[in-house]
Amino acid sequence: MATETPRRQQIEDAASTLFRERGYAATSVRDIAHALDMQGGSLYAHVASKEDMLWAIVVRAADRFNAEVGPIAASDRTAARKLRKMIRAHVAVVTSAQKDAAVFLDEWRFLSEERRAQIAARRDDYEGLFRRAISEGVASGEFGRVDPRLTAMVILSALNGIATWYRPEGNLTPAAIADRHADLFLRSLTCAARTHP
Amino acid sequence: MATETPRRQQIEDAASTLFRERGYAATSVRDIAHALDMQGGSLYAHVASKEDMLWAIVVRAADRFNAEVGPIAASDRTAARKLRKMIRAHVAVVTSAQKDAAVFLDEWRFLSEERRAQIAARRDDYEGLFRRAISEGVASGEFGRVDPRLTAMVILSALNGIATWYRPEGNLTPAAIADRHADLFLRSLTCAARTHP
Repeated sequence: MATETPRRQQIEDAASTLFRERGYAATSVRDIAHALDMQGGSLYAHVASKEDMLWAIVVRAADRFNAEVGPIAASDRTAARKLRKMIRAHVAVVTSAQKDAAVFLDEWRFLSEERRAQIAARRDDYEGLFRRAISEGVASGEFGRVDPRLTAMVILSALNGIATWYRPEGNLTPAAIADRHADLFLRSLTCAARTHP
Repeated sequence: MATETPRRQQIEDAASTLFRERGYAATSVRDIAHALDMQGGSLYAHVASKEDMLWAIVVRAADRFNAEVGPIAASDRTAARKLRKMIRAHVAVVTSAQKDAAVFLDEWRFLSEERRAQIAARRDDYEGLFRRAISEGVASGEFGRVDPRLTAMVILSALNGIATWYRPEGNLTPAAIADRHADLFLRSLTCAARTHP
């Protein structure tokens, strides 16, 4: 794999924009080259195929989510504080790298089977960070006896939905969006603890 | 618009399957004809274009959501009971018409601008059913003072996420999935009422 160069990053950014706007399948290498004022042929000096561009975008999005949320998940905090901080970090990635996040979430199914399997495994590991934070809260009695698997899926579906509706010019900041999501979910989790101690 | 015939419905079903598996942009009219053992040319006796097939699938999904959830939203129930029944009805559509629901949710962005605007308006009306049920609960004091708009978006993002992970052979029935979602959200809403009366 080539090392990351500014040119390579420009190519990935242009590809991310087009994959998001038109979908991966409807975007050609020529379209990406055109967006960069390049010839299709010279693009191939930087990337081997359209799928490699999708792969690079998906991997950098997955890396980003892990880099931001992983250390919080591994930290020593109460489950409620940890989950709130994880939600904030996830929303920060979705809103600041919105194009990549949307491509990661919607277009990864167009990867080859082997790469799709790798990403499915990474997504499951990542979801595991949320499952574990919820399980910790259930074990400590901070949260009620909820199903960590389903609850983690519900939280991540809602947080990932933000990639489809977030507009930077809207009237809610990413921090406010994150806090409202955290309030909603933590209220449910901690309330379950009070009603079913 | 042609009236719905069994043949037309078969065509829409085949298109829905392919649009979901490969994405709209990567599916050709020839692929759809091939799946039906038809010639591309004879398919055009039934539908005018690939986009018309997408439009038919998206409209029938939107109609289905409205037909199932609309009457509940208009009924005379407490907000908590109404919202639970609306969640059940929405999940029933997502799980029983999963292909159509996934195409509706993921591929509608490939419609022409005018049709996309029509669907955006229908989706906003539909989301309005959830916003109003939440507002009713806030007004009656059943629910805490939450933001109905954001809460409706969170609930629908989570419920629509089910279209991406639901497997009929999995160990949770649609009714159980719906009830766990309803429990999670209603606990949050009613708990907010108790902590901020």
